[in-house]
Amino acid sequence: MSFRATLGIKHPIIQAPMAGSDNPTLVAAASNSGVLGSLGAQYRSPEEIRKAIQHIRDLTDKPFAINLFALPKTVPPTESEIRTAATPLERYYAKFNIQTPTPASVRSTIDAEAQLQVLLDERVPIFSFTLGVPDSKWLDAFRENGTLLIGTATNIDEALLLERSGVDALTAQGTEAGGHRGTFIGAHEDSMVGLMSLIPELVDTVKIPVIAAGGIMDGRGIAAAFALGAQAVQLGTAFLGVNECSVHQAYKDALKTHTSNQTKITKVFSGGAARGIDNEFMHENAETPLLPFPYHNSLTRPIRKVANESGLTEYTNLWSGQSGRLLREVSTNELVKALIDETKSAVDNLFAACVAMEHAD
Amino acid sequence: MSFRATLGIKHPIIQAPMAGSDNPTLVAAASNSGVLGSLGAQYRSPEEIRKAIQHIRDLTDKPFAINLFALPKTVPPTESEIRTAATPLERYYAKFNIQTPTPASVRSTIDAEAQLQVLLDERVPIFSFTLGVPDSKWLDAFRENGTLLIGTATNIDEALLLERSGVDALTAQGTEAGGHRGTFIGAHEDSMVGLMSLIPELVDTVKIPVIAAGGIMDGRGIAAAFALGAQAVQLGTAFLGVNECSVHQAYKDALKTHTSNQTKITKVFSGGAARGIDNEFMHENAETPLLPFPYHNSLTRPIRKVANESGLTEYTNLWSGQSGRLLREVSTNELVKALIDETKSAVDNLFAACVAMEHAD
Repeated sequence: MSFRATLGIKHPIIQAPMAGSDNPTLVAAASNSGVLGSLGAQYRSPEEIRKAIQHIRDLTDKPFAINLFALPKTVPPTESEIRTAATPLERYYAKFNIQTPTPASVRSTIDAEAQLQVLLDERVPIFSFTLGVPDSKWLDAFRENGTLLIGTATNIDEALLLERSGVDALTAQGTEAGGHRGTFIGAHEDSMVGLMSLIPELVDTVKIPVIAAGGIMDGRGIAAAFALGAQAVQLGTAFLGVNECSVHQAYKDALKTHTSNQTKITKVFSGGAARGIDNEFMHENAETPLLPFPYHNSLTRPIRKVANESGLTEYTNLWSGQSGRLLREVSTNELVKALIDETKSAVDNLFAACVAMEHAD
Repeated sequence: MSFRATLGIKHPIIQAPMAGSDNPTLVAAASNSGVLGSLGAQYRSPEEIRKAIQHIRDLTDKPFAINLFALPKTVPPTESEIRTAATPLERYYAKFNIQTPTPASVRSTIDAEAQLQVLLDERVPIFSFTLGVPDSKWLDAFRENGTLLIGTATNIDEALLLERSGVDALTAQGTEAGGHRGTFIGAHEDSMVGLMSLIPELVDTVKIPVIAAGGIMDGRGIAAAFALGAQAVQLGTAFLGVNECSVHQAYKDALKTHTSNQTKITKVFSGGAARGIDNEFMHENAETPLLPFPYHNSLTRPIRKVANESGLTEYTNLWSGQSGRLLREVSTNELVKALIDETKSAVDNLFAACVAMEHAD
């Protein structure tokens, strides 16, 4: 059975989870257009996740994925550490007339096990995760439920660990990818591998299907990923442009007008390393002491909320892969149709060029 | 006319210049096998370059390229700066029983204009360069001579400048590439773009042919680069494995056994940023004060010379792209044949998969 048949989708394309930018309408639109929609549920409470899943199911009967960060448990920062990290942010709280988050609110994070339990109770078709591997008791329970499992690897050690954990497929996250780096073995700096190298390496190393993620925005990238051995592709930034994605127009404009080398890996927004378009907030906080992820995220959340709502692109995370400039503002359905047509053209052209080359010999 | 016809080669593949690892025999073997051989002549004196060109011409009547670093002129370091930079290296000079290089020898660099004059006098078929753009008087002279010009870009600004300078093609150096980063506009850290993003960006931006370089070691990578819009590919690391490349067996073994995330960008060997396999020398000198490129290169050269000759891989630069693990130890002719066969297979498979997908719809 082909991998897309296993996933129950028409086209081997996945709309990447984008916690903070995706929504149930986008996910359902993606699934209805023949690709796999994914919801990044990391920052939603268990009850919010339950409602979001119901919302998706109201809009589509096609498979979809729910994504969580499989972070190891960490000791919350002390009140003193929180105050130290909040101090440099006071100027933004003042600027935007926001209350400084209380240490108690920063220390309290969402119960990861309760999130997982909702996904299990709701028997989601596909559970994808990044930044680690959930305990085997959870993976066993999902498998018994018939839920397909997709992990994320940024290096060969992670790929081998994921394969041993019994996941059905893995996402190869190249250095080109936008948003949080999924690295969980070694430092993220040591796993900045381009897809040109990472896809063949993981395909040669594991037996499960490899999904290519990073910098893919059109049919050229899809054809290239398949040539390298991927069995599916995952596109995030490309879906930020669709009508069903409600991020601010200023964010979409920033995506279309920057160049590949204007994105940077930064920790200043969440405490975790992530790729986004370079902006003032990143410059101003280059030396700021940060809480570990996800605690620092709670400190910057109110600032980013105001900035996102007002289109103040210098004060929020503009996650983007290295090909954001190829963004298209169309419907999800139009985007998917274009991707399929372009991929076929790219492959046809490649085949014709290859034939021409043989004839010229 | 196709780009490979313009270059006068049978297959749209370039054996990358690799100053320190390439040699006239390798270059001629590459050209004789139907691809474009290149000699990295940066560290050779004008007279040595003249002899190398003659040597290549003795072995082949096919086109070849000579490559130089188009560095801007810099003020040599002071004697005091040289002594400061040499002090941490004394332990290696002592270990290997080497004389500490004299400040005078470090300050004296090869005359770049004299190197260019040799290339002009010898009417080399192709002149490729990186790390800058030579003065227009030189480019004009080469053009009048019928020499084709190929520049190197790691970002869109460099690509536009190169196109304006009138080069015939440009090499897109992705983050995956081994050896020296070619960045000359902005910091190299700001131009670490994966080929999945860089190739389409440069193809969409300039009208001249784009050559893809970085992490390409087999037909999968070649097919992917063409799918992304490249008109040729440049492979360096792949040619380190061939019989005609005389680097130490220990270096070849290190290439075959490391993983993609075990290469790092380092300045410790030359003062210039370059990608190589992580080793002791890189760790031990992480905090060492460095002279700017190419002066620091002169300080470490005697150490690297002994290490290279003795296969002491922990004490020399093991330049490698991120796909070095795919190295093959075969003849140049066998490598080129395999690359062509694999590319055809990769394209055939891609085409068949695309057709199967349409039939399944």
